[in-house]
Amino acid sequence: MIPTITAFKNAPDRGRGLARDMRVRWALEEVEQPYQVRLLTFSEMKQPAHLALQPFGQIPTYEEGDLALFESGAIILHIAQRHAGLLPQDQNARARAMTWMFTAAGTIEPVIVERETAQYSESDKDWFAQRQPLVDERVRAHLTILSRHLGNADWLDGDFSAADLVMVSALLRLKSSGILEEFPNLSPYTTRAASRPAYQRAFAAQLAVFKGAQAC
Amino acid sequence: MIPTITAFKNAPDRGRGLARDMRVRWALEEVEQPYQVRLLTFSEMKQPAHLALQPFGQIPTYEEGDLALFESGAIILHIAQRHAGLLPQDQNARARAMTWMFTAAGTIEPVIVERETAQYSESDKDWFAQRQPLVDERVRAHLTILSRHLGNADWLDGDFSAADLVMVSALLRLKSSGILEEFPNLSPYTTRAASRPAYQRAFAAQLAVFKGAQAC
Repeated sequence: MIPTITAFKNAPDRGRGLARDMRVRWALEEVEQPYQVRLLTFSEMKQPAHLALQPFGQIPTYEEGDLALFESGAIILHIAQRHAGLLPQDQNARARAMTWMFTAAGTIEPVIVERETAQYSESDKDWFAQRQPLVDERVRAHLTILSRHLGNADWLDGDFSAADLVMVSALLRLKSSGILEEFPNLSPYTTRAASRPAYQRAFAAQLAVFKGAQAC
Repeated sequence: MIPTITAFKNAPDRGRGLARDMRVRWALEEVEQPYQVRLLTFSEMKQPAHLALQPFGQIPTYEEGDLALFESGAIILHIAQRHAGLLPQDQNARARAMTWMFTAAGTIEPVIVERETAQYSESDKDWFAQRQPLVDERVRAHLTILSRHLGNADWLDGDFSAADLVMVSALLRLKSSGILEEFPNLSPYTTRAASRPAYQRAFAAQLAVFKGAQAC
């Protein structure tokens, strides 16, 4: 059964691949599974039909027969458990991949999102300029540890896995900040991941949606 | 094989059960598995022996033979996958439990942690009092949606699961804020979870550690 995911009809990142449907597309491309996409306007995301699938009114969702999921981390885990290619075979290595998936989703991405939240909802406040260095320092403190762990390795723990997919997706949100480049191994880590054919196919697919919306 | 977890030798929350070893203890109690605890001082948490297990220098870790994990969400998922009692049998319901585990760890808990971070690292700043309502509003916006989803149900999706365990653990961090009480169904949700015998045993165990440290 071919799953259906939801994505922005008109992505606020202008097709830079930062919306969270990108990581689900990427996961599906890694395991070579076809998928369908239902595009939603911002207004449609807040209507009952979508809220029944995603109570926070966000994308992506994932529907496959009777199953309806949301939260990109959970969707990626579901895909990774069902198809070979995103998790190691060894049970201990699989459990460690979970450690890094939760680190990406619950420890690294939140400080990056907090930086973004400050930028779009506090940039008009008196305190914004004064507070920004503090927020950046929190991001740096986390990346320092991540960078130390990665060292000279290509991926977080052995072969490329769902954990790298989620981690790199979070790190790419920092692309325009300049912070990533302060860590000599992290920028190449994201480039290495983004060079994967599966990433490239997913990126092209989401960009095509954005360009299509602009052409209308 | 009996796993070993790490916990604070002298918990900064004074035994209120807010340190993240509590949720791992709780999970192990739910599945009725024995465990050992290695207590660490703040200094020991930042030393190489612990950093090799937990690069962020935090607790808890989980060691079981050759396997070493960190991130409480990943540890709880590992326990839930290995022992009956924390995840439904039905595969679709299991996938939905993942959706709510990731919602707890990656969507709900981060805004609660951001509120705490502001309190302990920005309370001396000029902007703190002015910014606090904004931070509280972000927490409320998330809880409004969670509260609407929970409705009159006892648990997030069918029977009690690892998702409720992680969600309630995050919500309990708000206990002293008064925000939880603004949602008529959320405070009872946490009370219902905290009344479970497994929670009670875990709570007593971590409190005994704190009291023991005080008696030294």
